[in-house]
Amino acid sequence: MKVNIGKKILTANEEYAAKNRLLLSENKKLCLNMISSPGSGKTTILVRTINDLNGKIKIGVIEGDIRTDIDAKRITAAGAPAIQINTDGACHLSALQVNAALKKLPFDGIDLIFIENVGNLVCPSAFELGENAKIVVLSVAEGDDKPAKYPAIFAKSKVLLINKIDLLKTAGQVDFNIERVKTDARRLNKDIEIFPISARTGEGFAEWYRWLTESVGKLKA
Amino acid sequence: MKVNIGKKILTANEEYAAKNRLLLSENKKLCLNMISSPGSGKTTILVRTINDLNGKIKIGVIEGDIRTDIDAKRITAAGAPAIQINTDGACHLSALQVNAALKKLPFDGIDLIFIENVGNLVCPSAFELGENAKIVVLSVAEGDDKPAKYPAIFAKSKVLLINKIDLLKTAGQVDFNIERVKTDARRLNKDIEIFPISARTGEGFAEWYRWLTESVGKLKA
Repeated sequence: MKVNIGKKILTANEEYAAKNRLLLSENKKLCLNMISSPGSGKTTILVRTINDLNGKIKIGVIEGDIRTDIDAKRITAAGAPAIQINTDGACHLSALQVNAALKKLPFDGIDLIFIENVGNLVCPSAFELGENAKIVVLSVAEGDDKPAKYPAIFAKSKVLLINKIDLLKTAGQVDFNIERVKTDARRLNKDIEIFPISARTGEGFAEWYRWLTESVGKLKA
Repeated sequence: MKVNIGKKILTANEEYAAKNRLLLSENKKLCLNMISSPGSGKTTILVRTINDLNGKIKIGVIEGDIRTDIDAKRITAAGAPAIQINTDGACHLSALQVNAALKKLPFDGIDLIFIENVGNLVCPSAFELGENAKIVVLSVAEGDDKPAKYPAIFAKSKVLLINKIDLLKTAGQVDFNIERVKTDARRLNKDIEIFPISARTGEGFAEWYRWLTESVGKLKA
């Protein structure tokens, strides 16, 4: 008898992903799984989004971190409910962990759930959590070769947020060819939506909010 | 019968790590395993180091990437031999892959071997490759909470390179409390050597070169 361990683990995760998908669908919640390297600005993007959409879209957050509740505290301080998951060393969130967290979120007061995955551009791309879409975040400080070097997450994401574009402003601060990133990302994923933003200054967020508002609207229609 | 799969995989890796350690020791080569998030500047640090130490320390590089040979080409252009490993999706290098690459490197012309691991602050920390030491690289653009949030690699590394400090120079470009990083890293690892550098400008590299020169010297003594 041959036991394919890799496949079995993935299937168990997919089973919980399917449960999450059903739970979200029945309750008409939009769920977005944010994936990036550590320090690309996921939490800062969420804090600004929660502040700016306050009253228009009600947001809840599931925070995935290896250790600490630094990020959940930042979200809570911004006024949104946050459930912290500590993976205790694991490099990605599992659908089982997200299932437990979903049950703790106050669904009645929420339209949109962000899952902030563990900071890692590789592993989280292989684990479905039951989300409606993946959002990949790339900071300009990380360089413009990242879609070429880490293709999986760019191929699977519905949206690419190119963050920290304020660092491009001072000539020569950061070498980053935004057109190269767009071209490489679209080669992997022709329908990917790309929003260049600065979570520090707020530049570019209007387009991102339009996309979020439309996506929440479609789900409720 | 209970089969502990996790343990078995690690042991197979450790076996190759031990082979690599022996091979390196017999040949008196210093081997440093560089680990960081994608885009922290590992390759740029290596390119500058190769250029500046040209003739003083002979360097070879093993390049780990999920896809592409972009990094190996940059190293070769700087004048050092480079062996590219493509992990084809895997999130870290294995000791087996490194063993094959070590055998391809021209050992006679080399004092120091850098392994540039796959860009990932999490998974590579769990896999010994037979290296003499791990070097963790953190870019100031990633934020000062990273040792707290990703403790494993900071606890295991001999050296922390804090890169892109040129981005701190223009007030307000990047929020990063370098003292917080030093304190948090030393709480995890009291003996860690910390060198703030800019691979763009060369600032701080003298200390890094002193450490490299001493480390290569000790091995040959």
